Amino acid sequence: MKLTGRPSLGIDVGGTTFGVVLLDADGRVVDAADEATPRGVPPGVAVKTIAESARTLAGRAGLAPRDLAGIGLAVPGSVDGPRGVLRFSPNLPGWRDVPVAALAAEVMDAPVALEHDVRMAAFGESRRGAGAGAMSFVCLTVGTGIGAAIVLDGRLYRGATDAAGEIGHVPVVSGGEPCGCGRRGCLETVASGRAMAVRAGMATAQDVFAAAAAGDPRCATIVAQAVAALAVGLTTLVNVLNPDVIAVGGGVAAAGCALFDPLRAAVRAAAWTPGAEAVRIVPAALGTRAGAIGAAIFATETRRGC
Amino acid sequence: MKLTGRPSLGIDVGGTTFGVVLLDADGRVVDAADEATPRGVPPGVAVKTIAESARTLAGRAGLAPRDLAGIGLAVPGSVDGPRGVLRFSPNLPGWRDVPVAALAAEVMDAPVALEHDVRMAAFGESRRGAGAGAMSFVCLTVGTGIGAAIVLDGRLYRGATDAAGEIGHVPVVSGGEPCGCGRRGCLETVASGRAMAVRAGMATAQDVFAAAAAGDPRCATIVAQAVAALAVGLTTLVNVLNPDVIAVGGGVAAAGCALFDPLRAAVRAAAWTPGAEAVRIVPAALGTRAGAIGAAIFATETRRGC
Repeated sequence: MKLTGRPSLGIDVGGTTFGVVLLDADGRVVDAADEATPRGVPPGVAVKTIAESARTLAGRAGLAPRDLAGIGLAVPGSVDGPRGVLRFSPNLPGWRDVPVAALAAEVMDAPVALEHDVRMAAFGESRRGAGAGAMSFVCLTVGTGIGAAIVLDGRLYRGATDAAGEIGHVPVVSGGEPCGCGRRGCLETVASGRAMAVRAGMATAQDVFAAAAAGDPRCATIVAQAVAALAVGLTTLVNVLNPDVIAVGGGVAAAGCALFDPLRAAVRAAAWTPGAEAVRIVPAALGTRAGAIGAAIFATETRRGC
Repeated sequence: MKLTGRPSLGIDVGGTTFGVVLLDADGRVVDAADEATPRGVPPGVAVKTIAESARTLAGRAGLAPRDLAGIGLAVPGSVDGPRGVLRFSPNLPGWRDVPVAALAAEVMDAPVALEHDVRMAAFGESRRGAGAGAMSFVCLTVGTGIGAAIVLDGRLYRGATDAAGEIGHVPVVSGGEPCGCGRRGCLETVASGRAMAVRAGMATAQDVFAAAAAGDPRCATIVAQAVAALAVGLTTLVNVLNPDVIAVGGGVAAAGCALFDPLRAAVRAAAWTPGAEAVRIVPAALGTRAGAIGAAIFATETRRGC
């Protein structure tokens, strides 16, 4: 897929680290770097530090920001993409109503596109990953939390007020455990990496999957409950949207077949048959770089007015 | 809304009766008729009888089919709209792989557009009813069964394989009662008009609402369970799609405030807050004519290549 005649730059800012990728004109990663997200400084200073690191990466390839086809930035939290503002983020304490795009653009002396990290990752997967060629694509991230982004006919679907894809808060257990959102029994309370680890008294969901595989019955139950809850969420997506592809990424997806085999079987049994037969449930393909890759491509397409 | 310079004709075929509407150039109903759906004859004969009735209605206004801007036909069941074929329908026994659009077009000597009745109703509501002006609109029909159609940016959203909107089979009660689809605990098993009536041992859902209002505790429980189940379905729609309007029509919606007041409260409490605050949950506005009105408008817009 020829994206443009010029390279592009993508930045994915997380609570602990941020990643930068440089894509060539065909959308392939030609350079990448990870650094610690600046802490203990005002958000404006942190954004400028991050943007300078990204500019440096481009500079290593002999590129100035204005040589690039697009510069995109992905952030977690509540994002006003069109205005380029991060409203707030549980993962970036103290960042509130930060004009991230404008601050980064000042450092770059070039426009910067801002979007939610889950959406940028989904966008990347839709262009160069698990959703390439899909007409109706949902990309689920199952990590600390659970989020989804929807790409229909190649375009990010945002909903009426930019709140589409909140699959993590679909109710799956009536009167279940309290959720961070203030309700009970949301998908996240059973199937997020954090929920699985907390319920098992372990450090990560990977540990829980490993213990279950080694025969620990309590961990096997926790895994089974997480898979059953995810299956309810995916069944909902299949019945409502009838997507051709659902990709699952994030830390929990790293469990591989131990997650995907029972999940596919459960969705196939529970979902409306025509939708269940049509959907492919696959691992996300771009790994931890998905957000940065998606940001670079999104920025390029946005600037070209796609 | 100026639709076209010419009138249009819509037909909505149900298991018991079929309705025909003639719309003027502005999409207003200027004439309508209802007749019994022909039974005990081959489907091809039935379709031609229905089409002749519709042609007669147009003739009463001095119009020949070729004078019309569009002729649309809504049917229940599994529909291949682009090919104009009804694959099968639980409500029309014996109709299997019937080329309804071609048969009707032969009688009319003009093109006929075919689509699923729930989708046609939603399309009508999106143009001239409860969803007018909505960016992201879901129209739910809660009658004998439960179906939904989705209109995004003014266009019918069909999904990858034409199976989007199957909200009636979203699982709401783990291990619940058997559903006609072969699964258990689907929304339809608790909240459809048929399920409510069967559970109460009454003739219709209206009877159940009336008995609940009169103080019958068992019917009050059945109503409360139906509302709670519908709220799970609507919460799912809000969290996934973030629609600005959800319209609810069909026989159960005739209960009015006894349905809508507790339903709105339950969705507001259960759904992700930004989506819950954005959505308006309203009664469908076009009543029993929605399918035929939608069919006429859909046919007109389709012929104009919208």
